[in-house]
Amino acid sequence: MKIDGTPYRSIWVADDGWSVRVIDQTRLPHAFEVVRLSTLQDAAHAITAMVVRGAPLIGATAAYGLCLALGHDASDAALEAAAETLIATRPTAINLRWAVEEMLAAVRNLPRAERLAAAYARAAAICDADVAVNRAIGEHGLKLLEAAAAKAGRGGAVEVLTHCNAGWLATVDWGTALAPIYRAHDAGMPIHVWVDETRPRNQGAALTAWELGRHGVQHTVIADNAGGHLMQRGEVDLCIVGTDRTTAEGDVANKIGTYLKALAAADNGVPFYVALPGTTIDWTLERGADIPIELRAESEVTHIAGRAEDGRVLSVQVTPDGSRAANYAFDVTPAKLVTALITERGICAASREGLLGLYPERREG
Amino acid sequence: MKIDGTPYRSIWVADDGWSVRVIDQTRLPHAFEVVRLSTLQDAAHAITAMVVRGAPLIGATAAYGLCLALGHDASDAALEAAAETLIATRPTAINLRWAVEEMLAAVRNLPRAERLAAAYARAAAICDADVAVNRAIGEHGLKLLEAAAAKAGRGGAVEVLTHCNAGWLATVDWGTALAPIYRAHDAGMPIHVWVDETRPRNQGAALTAWELGRHGVQHTVIADNAGGHLMQRGEVDLCIVGTDRTTAEGDVANKIGTYLKALAAADNGVPFYVALPGTTIDWTLERGADIPIELRAESEVTHIAGRAEDGRVLSVQVTPDGSRAANYAFDVTPAKLVTALITERGICAASREGLLGLYPERREG
Repeated sequence: MKIDGTPYRSIWVADDGWSVRVIDQTRLPHAFEVVRLSTLQDAAHAITAMVVRGAPLIGATAAYGLCLALGHDASDAALEAAAETLIATRPTAINLRWAVEEMLAAVRNLPRAERLAAAYARAAAICDADVAVNRAIGEHGLKLLEAAAAKAGRGGAVEVLTHCNAGWLATVDWGTALAPIYRAHDAGMPIHVWVDETRPRNQGAALTAWELGRHGVQHTVIADNAGGHLMQRGEVDLCIVGTDRTTAEGDVANKIGTYLKALAAADNGVPFYVALPGTTIDWTLERGADIPIELRAESEVTHIAGRAEDGRVLSVQVTPDGSRAANYAFDVTPAKLVTALITERGICAASREGLLGLYPERREG
Repeated sequence: MKIDGTPYRSIWVADDGWSVRVIDQTRLPHAFEVVRLSTLQDAAHAITAMVVRGAPLIGATAAYGLCLALGHDASDAALEAAAETLIATRPTAINLRWAVEEMLAAVRNLPRAERLAAAYARAAAICDADVAVNRAIGEHGLKLLEAAAAKAGRGGAVEVLTHCNAGWLATVDWGTALAPIYRAHDAGMPIHVWVDETRPRNQGAALTAWELGRHGVQHTVIADNAGGHLMQRGEVDLCIVGTDRTTAEGDVANKIGTYLKALAAADNGVPFYVALPGTTIDWTLERGADIPIELRAESEVTHIAGRAEDGRVLSVQVTPDGSRAANYAFDVTPAKLVTALITERGICAASREGLLGLYPERREG
């Protein structure tokens, strides 16, 4: 997508041909800075410190992290250790593990001398595949937006609510939940996005608002508390969110608070869609309750980063000294609250049958 | 309630016998400052700028605001103008209007010379009545907490989730939603409160956490997004919130986001209680959708106040330049999602019949 007219991806190999560049998402929206990753540790730290985040981008970063590790030491032991380090960076996103396993499969059986080139080729292919997948998600989701726009009796822009950031910054390009919105906008459809702030890390206010604004898409930031009221007032035509892991039964783990919006959508007859690449489906899990939920630092709740009047970006404490905080990063939206899943292969019901219809190769026996 | 051992109310007449003191709630939790109100304008500004907030405390402040106006000019015209100014300060809270009308009724038919003393007496009575009402709410609510504590199979503290601040800072003393919690704590019951941060103004993180902490009640601050997940995990025994206006049918307007927690409570079988003084019931309204919802400044969403590392309290911008924000201050929780109402007269169903059972004088005919 574009930043003030210039096309970007969220991760790319630098002109030196081996080091990796990512946009430092912890500095957005107040500063646009590109960070250089040159070691496995750089890549792992970029994931844990959320310099990069979003399930698909985490996968892409882990893929290049393995490349950086192999550039240093192409032995079997180094490869396995690097894979372990990367998989341990974030527990909830399923395609982190998928990307690492893809990389291992691509290089494990090669002689050492051939591993590095094969790794970079596979990482690039993972990135390109992510872009293609998201473009396809956008194409399928566009039909839902067109249907909403065509609905009798409505005028003005199609009103979409989204939570957290499942935009191009969360992927290599296009995004998942935002891909249909970018396609609609680029095609000239009037569209307006309600952007949940998404405390505690404010990925909505900081990242989704930023990328929509830079690309020129109309949007309004709201407190996470406001979405239910907007749906009660009829000001939301549909919700689209991303996911970090979807079970084989269609339960969806996504940023904490997604479940609350899904409840409000169901209560108000607002369609609630989840956009996902097939790689975020965990075919080994049936129940959302079995998805491990990451517990992050208290300081993300007790403190908020922002830009002071003097231009400095700093963190302020919002709680009293001595008050504890709890910080669950994800929640699970049960399939019953999901109107449909939007995948690269099309739209399906949030159910085993729905998913198997699009991914028949997963049928057993 | 107590601040580190010293008993306080949230509003009181100063030793000079006429000026009014309130705790500046915009400075909490980082600084404890008492502000002097000496004119009608001071009182009105304290309400609009949310130096004081919370439906009952707004009513008490408006009552003293009329006293301050009368001290300056006891004419009929000044009285009516002051009443109008005060009623216009906040549109959603119903007992603001109630308190002003109580004051007018108390002084309107008196000779000018007697008005001032009568006004101070009535304002003091309104405050004392609020304390008595909240103490009674605490007593009735305590039974619900005791029942939760006695529930077979559970161990440890009773887990209560609350939204925004309906504590003693929102009233003259005790609070509404927090009154049962203070009573339980003072009686030695192990109790722990999940405190919703309550963006955009963070009354949970700033005020509820502060007053619970100062009084010694165990609590944990969570992002507004987290409550649903906690309920899914079985970590909430019951929810108690306050209200700014309750309709005759039991629909409840409260701080934006309350509705989302009520949906999650219903979805997870967690009792959802609303604590209220009878003065917040609007017998003239049936449907919650008819309650006027205050739309506040965008800057409350785009900016957050907190304490920087150097100790300064300042406001930081969390959104990108150019992104708009929308800021609805309240939402309406339909009666169907409310397990019961806790009033000063007892506990009742959130319905016309339930309310009329406790307030039979409101039956028509």
